[in-house]
Amino acid sequence: MAIQNARKRIADLINADSKEILLTSGGTESNNTAIYGIVFQNKGKHIITSSIEHDAILEPCKRLEREGYRVSYLPVDRHGLVNVDDIRKEISQDTCLITIMFANNEVGTIQPIKEIASMAHDNNIVFHTDAVQAVGKVPIDVKELGIDLLSISSHKINGPKGVGALHIRKGITISPLILGGGQENGLRSGTENVASIVGFGMACKLARDNMSQNMSYFKNLTSRLVTGVLSEIPGTNLNGHHEKRIPNNAHFTFLGVNGEDLIIKLDENKIAASTGSACSVRVQKASHVLRAMGFSHEQITGSLRLTVGITNTDEEIDEAIRVLKEVVQELRAVSPYKNKYNF
Amino acid sequence: MAIQNARKRIADLINADSKEILLTSGGTESNNTAIYGIVFQNKGKHIITSSIEHDAILEPCKRLEREGYRVSYLPVDRHGLVNVDDIRKEISQDTCLITIMFANNEVGTIQPIKEIASMAHDNNIVFHTDAVQAVGKVPIDVKELGIDLLSISSHKINGPKGVGALHIRKGITISPLILGGGQENGLRSGTENVASIVGFGMACKLARDNMSQNMSYFKNLTSRLVTGVLSEIPGTNLNGHHEKRIPNNAHFTFLGVNGEDLIIKLDENKIAASTGSACSVRVQKASHVLRAMGFSHEQITGSLRLTVGITNTDEEIDEAIRVLKEVVQELRAVSPYKNKYNF
Repeated sequence: MAIQNARKRIADLINADSKEILLTSGGTESNNTAIYGIVFQNKGKHIITSSIEHDAILEPCKRLEREGYRVSYLPVDRHGLVNVDDIRKEISQDTCLITIMFANNEVGTIQPIKEIASMAHDNNIVFHTDAVQAVGKVPIDVKELGIDLLSISSHKINGPKGVGALHIRKGITISPLILGGGQENGLRSGTENVASIVGFGMACKLARDNMSQNMSYFKNLTSRLVTGVLSEIPGTNLNGHHEKRIPNNAHFTFLGVNGEDLIIKLDENKIAASTGSACSVRVQKASHVLRAMGFSHEQITGSLRLTVGITNTDEEIDEAIRVLKEVVQELRAVSPYKNKYNF
Repeated sequence: MAIQNARKRIADLINADSKEILLTSGGTESNNTAIYGIVFQNKGKHIITSSIEHDAILEPCKRLEREGYRVSYLPVDRHGLVNVDDIRKEISQDTCLITIMFANNEVGTIQPIKEIASMAHDNNIVFHTDAVQAVGKVPIDVKELGIDLLSISSHKINGPKGVGALHIRKGITISPLILGGGQENGLRSGTENVASIVGFGMACKLARDNMSQNMSYFKNLTSRLVTGVLSEIPGTNLNGHHEKRIPNNAHFTFLGVNGEDLIIKLDENKIAASTGSACSVRVQKASHVLRAMGFSHEQITGSLRLTVGITNTDEEIDEAIRVLKEVVQELRAVSPYKNKYNF
């Protein structure tokens, strides 16, 4: 009963039915399940995705390439946007899956999901979206958007870590990744993590109940942060699309500064930030997202992602701006690019 | 730090090193990871297992058969024991994995793990054991037993549900099942369920600290149950091996009784029991374990598994015997086998 109650709450957040919700151990397993789940159906050996996906999409795709599948990694523009026409051109008789993330985890750009879903369906292709960064940040209606498969992670909406879901639209058949006792309607065997699932359900309920006020709150904080950083710190750019973006994300490039050094200095001042993906344990890997967006090596290493949460305050934003200004000045004073920019 | 502390506790329970512990979402994922992890290494297309494994072993094996792999399902004797010579005969140049459960989940029989591991190694074959039912019930030393891969489930030792581990001996290479950000040394991507892992670690510490007293406690309860049931209820057999068994399990056949009816009657009296595997959501499937042990259809349907836990008391055992006696009599009075046995 506790699981079914949580399943209903998860479904409600994205306007799905309870029966369309498959519970998993998190966003990564949801993404893997979506990809292999469709591939195992043997409807084709070609996948279309973007070059800025999370590793939980890119790594399964790379493995499939080694196994003889063909994968198209679409380019993005300077703002991180996929071009819908580019997808159209890649579609072939052999395309079994189009998987494009809802919002990017580094720069926050939101893709034209409805158009992509519609085009996928016009060509009888299943459409999956990794919505881990978007769920709970913007309203998502899977029916209205025409989404077949959608990945969610609990801890990205303040629920417990290590639990997530894959929305599977009624009528879409997938093969299971993990086999055994037949839990989750045979699609994901293993005794359920009831406690984590209940927490995830509550997080979904709170995200839905407070959606509009959270969005306003995120927008105010982010706007305060962006305005402050851009006006206080010269030689700084805001990255990602300026309108089509999740409200809780801000991504900057500080010219002449190494982002990794910045992280250390911010950490000393109790400010948590990240350069690349926050979910990757591999360090010092240049962001594939920024590279795809056409950033130079210098711009990539000078980039920083800051995200706000529901517990952040205006005072913390002001403190972050103050600290950022200070440490950027400090680092620029000893930067190898010092003369180039004449800071 | 919390995860690493838990990992150490999990390792200590089976005398492994922390680095040999891969954290998963449970026993099912551990078993799937072990099988696919070895198969993906492409060292051979033949697997040896037993006919009484859990579905989390059998179902991946069946899928692999559909993909062109060969799987040998070894028979067992009347007590549920695998014959080590049978394994030897099945070994071929193409055998990449031998996977035999440590203790059976229905009848509790413990297999000759050390002999099987030794024979696997003599033939350069990786040995995995699904030890979900045995860990915490009997002392397990992976080094002394020569085990390469071993699956553990947290909730079988009173830890939280939805978390488990796969022990991977140093020197054994497996391929990951779930790909992404590279957590767990690249072998199991996805943000870790920290809370569940910490609980699992504590359960392992308690299981290790209290091993001998728990074993005595289980043995006393089970012995009381077995003696009571066999002496009070005629036409009853104790199944599984009488010595080589986990101390918390008792498995009976009540001639002329339908086990499913028995479950319902016991449930009405607040006694939890099961017919087949407790972990399967599929109902009314005749036990493949008892079938492999040579039981007739009548014997299979008349069988019942009862397991004791650390919170059970002598009084509860006596109550269970009293209720069992009553409901078996009640059901036998209306049994279609009534005249056959002259109850």
